[in-house]
Amino acid sequence: MPEFLTLLPPDQAREKLLAHLPPPTIDPESLTVDSALGRVTAEDIVAPHPLPEFPRTTVDGYAVRAQDTFGATDSLPTYLNLIGEVPMGDSAPFEIGAGQCAMIHTGGMLPQGADAVVMLEYTQQTSEISKDFGSLSAEIEIFKSVADGENVIRIGEDVAQDQVVIPKGTILRPAEIGGLMALGFTSVRVARKVKVGLISTGDEVIEPSQRPRPGQVRDINSYTLGALVEKSGGVAVRYGIFGDQFEVLKEAAAKALTECDVVIVTAGSSASTRDMTAEVIRQLGEPGVLVHGINTRPGKPTILGVCNGRAVIGLPGNPVSALVNGYLFVAPVIEKLLGALPKPKATVLAKLTVNLASQAGREDWWPVKLLPSPHGRGQGEGFSADPIFGKSNLIFTLANADGLLRIPPDATGFGAGEIVEVMLI
Amino acid sequence: MPEFLTLLPPDQAREKLLAHLPPPTIDPESLTVDSALGRVTAEDIVAPHPLPEFPRTTVDGYAVRAQDTFGATDSLPTYLNLIGEVPMGDSAPFEIGAGQCAMIHTGGMLPQGADAVVMLEYTQQTSEISKDFGSLSAEIEIFKSVADGENVIRIGEDVAQDQVVIPKGTILRPAEIGGLMALGFTSVRVARKVKVGLISTGDEVIEPSQRPRPGQVRDINSYTLGALVEKSGGVAVRYGIFGDQFEVLKEAAAKALTECDVVIVTAGSSASTRDMTAEVIRQLGEPGVLVHGINTRPGKPTILGVCNGRAVIGLPGNPVSALVNGYLFVAPVIEKLLGALPKPKATVLAKLTVNLASQAGREDWWPVKLLPSPHGRGQGEGFSADPIFGKSNLIFTLANADGLLRIPPDATGFGAGEIVEVMLI
Repeated sequence: MPEFLTLLPPDQAREKLLAHLPPPTIDPESLTVDSALGRVTAEDIVAPHPLPEFPRTTVDGYAVRAQDTFGATDSLPTYLNLIGEVPMGDSAPFEIGAGQCAMIHTGGMLPQGADAVVMLEYTQQTSEISKDFGSLSAEIEIFKSVADGENVIRIGEDVAQDQVVIPKGTILRPAEIGGLMALGFTSVRVARKVKVGLISTGDEVIEPSQRPRPGQVRDINSYTLGALVEKSGGVAVRYGIFGDQFEVLKEAAAKALTECDVVIVTAGSSASTRDMTAEVIRQLGEPGVLVHGINTRPGKPTILGVCNGRAVIGLPGNPVSALVNGYLFVAPVIEKLLGALPKPKATVLAKLTVNLASQAGREDWWPVKLLPSPHGRGQGEGFSADPIFGKSNLIFTLANADGLLRIPPDATGFGAGEIVEVMLI
Repeated sequence: MPEFLTLLPPDQAREKLLAHLPPPTIDPESLTVDSALGRVTAEDIVAPHPLPEFPRTTVDGYAVRAQDTFGATDSLPTYLNLIGEVPMGDSAPFEIGAGQCAMIHTGGMLPQGADAVVMLEYTQQTSEISKDFGSLSAEIEIFKSVADGENVIRIGEDVAQDQVVIPKGTILRPAEIGGLMALGFTSVRVARKVKVGLISTGDEVIEPSQRPRPGQVRDINSYTLGALVEKSGGVAVRYGIFGDQFEVLKEAAAKALTECDVVIVTAGSSASTRDMTAEVIRQLGEPGVLVHGINTRPGKPTILGVCNGRAVIGLPGNPVSALVNGYLFVAPVIEKLLGALPKPKATVLAKLTVNLASQAGREDWWPVKLLPSPHGRGQGEGFSADPIFGKSNLIFTLANADGLLRIPPDATGFGAGEIVEVMLI
């Protein structure tokens, strides 16, 4: 394995892989907006009209011409004639002239002639309101002057017509779903889900539904990685489990490569099957293997390749390595293919409970349990991070972990009591 | 509105609401494990057998009796007779006796008699391997001693039989999906999704598919909250839009209360419809309104109630308040009903770009844009947090935000340059 001589750190390995992938070519599909949560927009969304489309009041009160209120104070109020009430959901059937005002409710459309709203709190009725042919009539005392536009949302204050309101590559969250609805979009074009083919290898691996004989283990990786793919915006296609036979594996990988956007081969545990994966990737298409071996723990035997424009990733067979390296390499590939814009990654700050040593130059990912520290006040003192020690082929070390703690290549570890950043998994 | 006199801070308001809800009574349902990502387990998962079920090697090398290697060094190697190769996925058809060893591949089952494995790197073959009736025969030089159990995963080292491996209330992540598969579980009982009824009110509100007349606006809240409900583990049931008529609204809410686990009424914008929601909750069942008005911005008019054991929440009509308060109150109610165990919330640390003032005693939630600071090194210096100023009824202030910045009640704001915690939305 000569590639092992020059192990790349994970960040460089990932960059190399992503750089060899063509720009996103995933076809878009049309979805109703209320079923598009979490999907990635395939085109810029442009506002077909301004929002709001009419000037609206943000308060309950009286619509006025601002200039009529200038100078009004508690001791020297201004008096305006109430000429009506603005109906909700409709334009007012009247216009505000000099010295006039109209009752208006939050969200109501400003009547013609008015340019501001005085809050109810700064007004008082001086005479009984009498209904006269359906309209109100009274005198209103105004105790505070308002500026032009005060307490009013202008036309286009939220978005202007023809403005790009949601750029291509946006992951749709509740707020964007609402924004689309506000503009009358009930369907949206999004990138279709990335198809990821999953192949498990190893003579000792059997389907989870089967009862293992001595020496056999159930397939975990097709399912942890399938779930990760689903979580990352893909759809998993399982090709099953293949024994340690080169031609059979190559044929399965070739089939997956024609049917999927990404292919993942999880190696059997033995060195011979790990080498087999690399050879399959070499033969599958150009440029083949880009990175063989990464300076990380777990995950050193990870293989990154591109064959005919599609990512083919060989992950170690042991379930912890496979899943951790899935987070490091598979999820970013899916995000790139979806055309998703980069997003900040959320983490949890926590106080490390023990010393953790690491080899300089190597990046380590430690499963940690986060325990609340009820008396913590400062940043990172709300939790303690307790590393879970255990051989990296024990899947429950990950199931018991809340997240992964990264020790970067330029560090030789962290000390007990240090505040560390934990990536939730 | 006398309740406004004693505004509770959001944390206390939420505690009061949750304390009035009965323990989780959501029925479980059975799902295949590979479709259960993100769901909450409805019972403890107990290991039906230990994992692994047989002692496995973690390295490629030779299975030995540890005592036979004691004292072996580079200069004084020990010599062992190679009696065979352990097949992958099966038990070996031989037993390791004194002075013997067998070739074994990572993941292979330790043969009878062996108790440790010497890594390939510390061995050398002294004679040609000759195939003799299908078995290997050679002498192996051992340059390093191993301890009993070295390079071996013991039976039950991952999990012991009858151990609770995934407690009730666990949100299933890729790691748990793998853990279930490893133990042969192909189906799992999870809490069914929480049904949340959504009612929009306001004479001015119309369906998003319709073209608004002057004065009308499209319904945003049913869709932002519907998406939030979906994201939080619920399923949204939309009851539509109701005008400002008390009896009609009460009837709709009563229907929703019989059909759903939670009911949310988003008020029309006007004060009259806000009061109407409170009155509906009062009449709907005991104890009715628990909290009317919360010391937060946005969201002061939020109403929290419980009617006959079910949460009924009145949210302000303006879309930013409705969604922010959805994050604060609706998501936690869903989590409680699902029986989900508490989890650390991930945040992003960032450097605030401007001064943000806040009223003492009030909790503020500011939409912020996170911009990467490429030269940032320390914690929180990787991003700058830029508040989005805009009236809180502009939905695109949230669509443009990466997260919400909380100013706690005991602070009077944050200064430019401070490191702040941002909740991603």
